[in-house]
Amino acid sequence: SNPTMLNPRLLRVRSALIRQCMAEFLGTFVLILFGLSAAAQVKTSRETKGQTLSIHLSWAVGVMSATYLTKGISGAHLNPAVSLCFCILGKLRWGQLLPYCVSQIFGAYVGAALVYALYYDAIMEFSGGVLTVYGPSETASIFATYPTEYLPLGGGFLDQVVGTGTLLLCILSLTEKRNAPAPPDLIAPIVAGVVLGIIMSMSANCGAALNPARDLGPRLLTLTAGWGTEVFTSFNYWFWVPIVAPIIGALTGTSLYLIFIEWQLPDEPQESHPEIFSISPSIKQSVALWEKEEEPKSTCF
Amino acid sequence: SNPTMLNPRLLRVRSALIRQCMAEFLGTFVLILFGLSAAAQVKTSRETKGQTLSIHLSWAVGVMSATYLTKGISGAHLNPAVSLCFCILGKLRWGQLLPYCVSQIFGAYVGAALVYALYYDAIMEFSGGVLTVYGPSETASIFATYPTEYLPLGGGFLDQVVGTGTLLLCILSLTEKRNAPAPPDLIAPIVAGVVLGIIMSMSANCGAALNPARDLGPRLLTLTAGWGTEVFTSFNYWFWVPIVAPIIGALTGTSLYLIFIEWQLPDEPQESHPEIFSISPSIKQSVALWEKEEEPKSTCF
Amino acid sequence: SNPTMLNPRLLRVRSALIRQCMAEFLGTFVLILFGLSAAAQVKTSRETKGQTLSIHLSWAVGVMSATYLTKGISGAHLNPAVSLCFCILGKLRWGQLLPYCVSQIFGAYVGAALVYALYYDAIMEFSGGVLTVYGPSETASIFATYPTEYLPLGGGFLDQVVGTGTLLLCILSLTEKRNAPAPPDLIAPIVAGVVLGIIMSMSANCGAALNPARDLGPRLLTLTAGWGTEVFTSFNYWFWVPIVAPIIGALTGTSLYLIFIEWQLPDEPQESHPEIFSISPSIKQSVALWEKEEEPKSTCF
Amino acid sequence: SNPTMLNPRLLRVRSALIRQCMAEFLGTFVLILFGLSAAAQVKTSRETKGQTLSIHLSWAVGVMSATYLTKGISGAHLNPAVSLCFCILGKLRWGQLLPYCVSQIFGAYVGAALVYALYYDAIMEFSGGVLTVYGPSETASIFATYPTEYLPLGGGFLDQVVGTGTLLLCILSLTEKRNAPAPPDLIAPIVAGVVLGIIMSMSANCGAALNPARDLGPRLLTLTAGWGTEVFTSFNYWFWVPIVAPIIGALTGTSLYLIFIEWQLPDEPQESHPEIFSISPSIKQSVALWEKEEEPKSTCF
Repeated sequence: SNPTMLNPRLLRVRSALIRQCMAEFLGTFVLILFGLSAAAQVKTSRETKGQTLSIHLSWAVGVMSATYLTKGISGAHLNPAVSLCFCILGKLRWGQLLPYCVSQIFGAYVGAALVYALYYDAIMEFSGGVLTVYGPSETASIFATYPTEYLPLGGGFLDQVVGTGTLLLCILSLTEKRNAPAPPDLIAPIVAGVVLGIIMSMSANCGAALNPARDLGPRLLTLTAGWGTEVFTSFNYWFWVPIVAPIIGALTGTSLYLIFIEWQLPDEPQESHPEIFSISPSIKQSVALWEKEEEPKSTCF
Repeated sequence: SNPTMLNPRLLRVRSALIRQCMAEFLGTFVLILFGLSAAAQVKTSRETKGQTLSIHLSWAVGVMSATYLTKGISGAHLNPAVSLCFCILGKLRWGQLLPYCVSQIFGAYVGAALVYALYYDAIMEFSGGVLTVYGPSETASIFATYPTEYLPLGGGFLDQVVGTGTLLLCILSLTEKRNAPAPPDLIAPIVAGVVLGIIMSMSANCGAALNPARDLGPRLLTLTAGWGTEVFTSFNYWFWVPIVAPIIGALTGTSLYLIFIEWQLPDEPQESHPEIFSISPSIKQSVALWEKEEEPKSTCF
Repeated sequence: SNPTMLNPRLLRVRSALIRQCMAEFLGTFVLILFGLSAAAQVKTSRETKGQTLSIHLSWAVGVMSATYLTKGISGAHLNPAVSLCFCILGKLRWGQLLPYCVSQIFGAYVGAALVYALYYDAIMEFSGGVLTVYGPSETASIFATYPTEYLPLGGGFLDQVVGTGTLLLCILSLTEKRNAPAPPDLIAPIVAGVVLGIIMSMSANCGAALNPARDLGPRLLTLTAGWGTEVFTSFNYWFWVPIVAPIIGALTGTSLYLIFIEWQLPDEPQESHPEIFSISPSIKQSVALWEKEEEPKSTCF
Repeated sequence: SNPTMLNPRLLRVRSALIRQCMAEFLGTFVLILFGLSAAAQVKTSRETKGQTLSIHLSWAVGVMSATYLTKGISGAHLNPAVSLCFCILGKLRWGQLLPYCVSQIFGAYVGAALVYALYYDAIMEFSGGVLTVYGPSETASIFATYPTEYLPLGGGFLDQVVGTGTLLLCILSLTEKRNAPAPPDLIAPIVAGVVLGIIMSMSANCGAALNPARDLGPRLLTLTAGWGTEVFTSFNYWFWVPIVAPIIGALTGTSLYLIFIEWQLPDEPQESHPEIFSISPSIKQSVALWEKEEEPKSTCF
C-alpha cells in the first residue's frame, strides 16, 4: 500500500549479527557525533557558543539518542567494556563480542571523521592551521582524551576504573525487576543522566572516556587526519589507558553490583509475569475467584 | 452544562486541512516565541540575564510545548523539512504539504513579530537604534541565522545537512513499536532533548536553523521591520542555505534511518495489538484458557 | 495499628474550602521559597554560588514540588490568574476564587518572610545594611519584580501579558485527552519545564512575575521588612503591572488555546473511558465477544 | 543455565538487616562519590572544567542513581534524618535506625576516601600540598560543609532546618496515592530534582548538607587524611550543626506535611487496590455486571 518503500523483508540484511553490527556502528557514530561536535563547538568558539556544561549535556543526549535508535536491534551497548560485561553476565554470546567491538570502534572513527569535516574551517581558524596535541591552540582534545599535566599514570588508570565502574554499577540496577526498576521505555534518558553525572564529576583528571571505542576511534581519526603520531605517543603513551582501564572498571563495577545488590535481592515472586503494567490485584482477584483459584496476596508498592 | 462555552462543534472549523494549518501556525508561533525571545534576552542583557545555554534550553522547551499543543491536530511537524519527509514516508498527503509549509512560515513570521514587539525597547537600547546585520551591536542574529566569518558556503551547507539529518535520524526511531520506543506521551520532551543536543553541538558554524520555516519567517520579519535587504544579501546571499540544506539533510537522515534501523527491525508480532499498555500475559492466559484458545508465548521484556 | 498518629479523620479540617486554602497557602509558600532563595543565593554570593540559570531552574523545581504537594487537594493553581481562568472554564466555582487568591498571596508573603530570615545575614553583608530598591547593592529585586530602566510602562504590560499568555496556552493542552496529553502523573515536571522556558526567554524586561501572588506577596514583605514604600512607588508605581497584566495575559492565552486548539479537536470517542491506562483492544475484544457486544474499532496510536 | 553465577540464594546474606545495611552503605557511597567528585573537579580545575551548577547537578544524579540502586532492598534512605522520620511515621522499625545510620556514615566515609584517592594529584596541585580549612587554596570544603564568614550559628542552624524541612515536605507527597503521586518508577529522578532545587537555592549560607551522614562521613575522612582537627574545631565547632539541624528540619518538614497535606487528604477509596495501573473503569464495569455487583462510580482524572 505504500508505493515509496519496497517490501521491508527484502531489504533486511539476512545475518542477525550483521544487523546488530550495523546498529552498533550507527549508535556509536551518533554518540560520537553529539559528544565531539559539542567539544568542537565550545573550543573553537572560545566558549562563546557554549561552555563545559553543554559538552557534558551533549554526551548525555548522544547516549539517549543512540540508545533509542539501536536498543531494539543490538541492545545499545555502544561500548566494548559494556559488551564484555554482558558476555560475562550471559546477556551476549562470546562470538558476538569481537564484531560488536569492531563495529563500535569503526562507528566512532566515522563519527569523528564527520565532526572533523563539520568543524574543519573552525578548527583551522582556531588552531591557525597547525594541528597539535599540546599548547593553547591544541585541538586533539576535541577528539580523544588526554590527561592533565600533573596526573601520574596510576592516577589516570584509577580514574578510568572508578568512572567506568560507577557507570556499570548504576545502570545494571535499572532493569532488575526484583529491585525498583526504571520504566523500560525511559531507560535511555536515565542512563544518559547517569553518564552526565559521571562526566560532570569525573572528567577533570583525564576526560572521562569510560569507553574504549569512544577514545580509540577518534584517536585513530586524528592520527590519519594530520595530528601525527603524537596522538598515540604523547603523555608517555597515554592512549592505552582509556582502552584498558574502562574494561577493568566495568568488571569492578559489575562485581560490586552483584555482591551488594543483585545477590541480595529477594526471590522473584512465584507468579510468572509480575510486570509493571500488569492489571491490578482487584481484577486478578475477580478472575481468580471465577477460576476457583486462590486469591493472591496483595503486596504493597 | 457549561454556560461559558457554546457547543464546541459549532465553533469547530469545517475543513480538517484548515484546522491542521491553524495548529501548525500556532505551534510554529510558540516554538519561535520561545527560541527568539531567549536569544533577545541573552543578547540585549549582554549575557547578564542568561547565557548561551539558556537560549539552547528555551528552544527545547519551545519544541516540547508546541508538540504537546498541536500533536493531536496536525502531528506537530513545525518544520517544512519534517513535513516533506513525512510525505515521502506516506504519513502526510502531498496535497497537505504546501498548506503546512505556508502555515509554518507564517507562524514563524508572526512569532518573530511578537518577539520584536516584546523586546523593542531592549533592542533599541542595545543597538543604539540602528538595526544592523554586522558588527558588535548587530541584532539581526536574534531572529535569523547567519554564518561565522570564516565559514565557506560548502561548510555551511554541510553543517545544515548534518544537523537536520541527525534530527530526523534520532526522532524517527522514537515511535517505532518494533524497536525500543519512547513512551507515546513523552515523545514531546524527548524530541526536545534531541533538539537541545543538536543545538548545543552543531550551532557554532551557522546557528543551527534545522528548519526552513524557523529561518525564513523571522528573516522576512527583519526585512519588513527595518533591518533592510542586507538580511537576505549578507554573507553572499546566505539566506537560501538554511532553506535548502535542511531539506537535503532531512532526506539524508531519513534514508540512513531506513537503511540502518527500520529495514533491519524484526517483523511485527502477529498479535494485532502488542501495545505497551496491554495487559500482562498472565491475564491473557486466563482469558485464553477460558476461550479455549492457545496460550500465547510469553516474551521477555 | 500506627501508634504515632491519631485517626486521620479526626485531624482533618471539616471545611473542604479551608483544606483547599491551606493547600494553596502551602503550595505558594513552597514555590516562593525555592524561587526567592535561589535569587538571594545568586545575588548575595555575587554569582559565585550560582548564576541566572540556577534561579530559573529553582523556580521550575518550586513549580514541580508545589504541584505534587497540592494537586490532590486544591488543584495546584498557585496563581490567582490561573484560578480566574479555571473559574471561567468552569473548573473552579466563583465562590472559591477570592479565598484561593488570598491564600496564595498570604503563602507568598510567608514564603518571602522565611527567605528574608534565611538570608538575613547574607542580605545585610551584601547591601551593607541598607535595604534599597535602586543601585548596585539593591536587594529588593530578590523579592519582587522591577522593570529595567529603559522599559516604558506599555512595554512592561505587554511583556507580562505575553509571558502569562504563553504559560496558559502551553499548559492547558497538557491534560486534554482528545489531544496528545502528557502523562497525568508527570504534569508537574512538564509544567515546570514550560515555566523554565518562559523565565529563560521572557524575564529580561521585567522579571517574569507571571503571577500576581508571586509578586504582591513578597512586595508586601519588603514593605513591612524595611525596604520602605519605594517598593510600591518606584518605577512610576510599577507594582500594579505584575498584578493586572498577568490576568489579562491568562485570559488572552486561554482564548487563543480555545480558538486554535480546544474547539478544533475531534470529538471524544463514544467509549466512555478512553484512558491512557485502559486495557488493550485485544482484551476488550475478548470481553466484548463474551458479552455479545460489538467489537470496538481499533484505533492506531 | 548461567554458568558464570552460582545459585544466587547461596550468595545472599542471611540477615535481612545486614542486606539492608549493605545497600545503605553502597547507596550513600555512590551519592557521596558523585557529589564530592564534582566539587573536587570544579575546585581543582579552578572552574575550567565545570561550574557551581555542575556540582549541584551531580548531587542530583547521585541521589537518582543511589535511589534506583537500593530502593528495592533498603528503601534508599541514604540519610539518617530520613531514617529517623520514617521510624516516627512507622515505615522503619526503631531497631533498624542505628544500623542504618552507621551504614550511611560509613558509606559516606568510604566514598569520600575514594574521591580523595581519585583527586589526590589534583588536590596536591591545587593546594600546593598543604591541606587547609581556610584561605583561597583550602580544599576541606570539597568534602564537608562550612559556613560563610558572616553567618552566625543561629543563621546556620535555621538554614539547615529550613533546607532539610523543605526536602521532607516535598518528597513525602510523592508516593501518597490519595494525592497526585509521581510515577512509582520515576520517584528517583523526581526526588533528585527536588534536591537539585534545594541545593541551588539554599546552599549559599553553609553548603546545604541536609544529611548528617553526608557531612560527618567526609569530615571524618578529612580528619584522618591530613586536614587535621581544624575540620572539627573551625568556625566555632561548626561541625555539629549539619548533624543536629537536619534532624530538627526533617521533623519540622514532616510535621508540616502531616498538618497541611496528609491529614487533609480525602479517604482512600473503599476498593482495596486503587493503583495507578489498575484497569480502566469500563472493563471494571463489564466485570462488575458479570459478577452482579454494583457499577462503580467513574471519577474524573
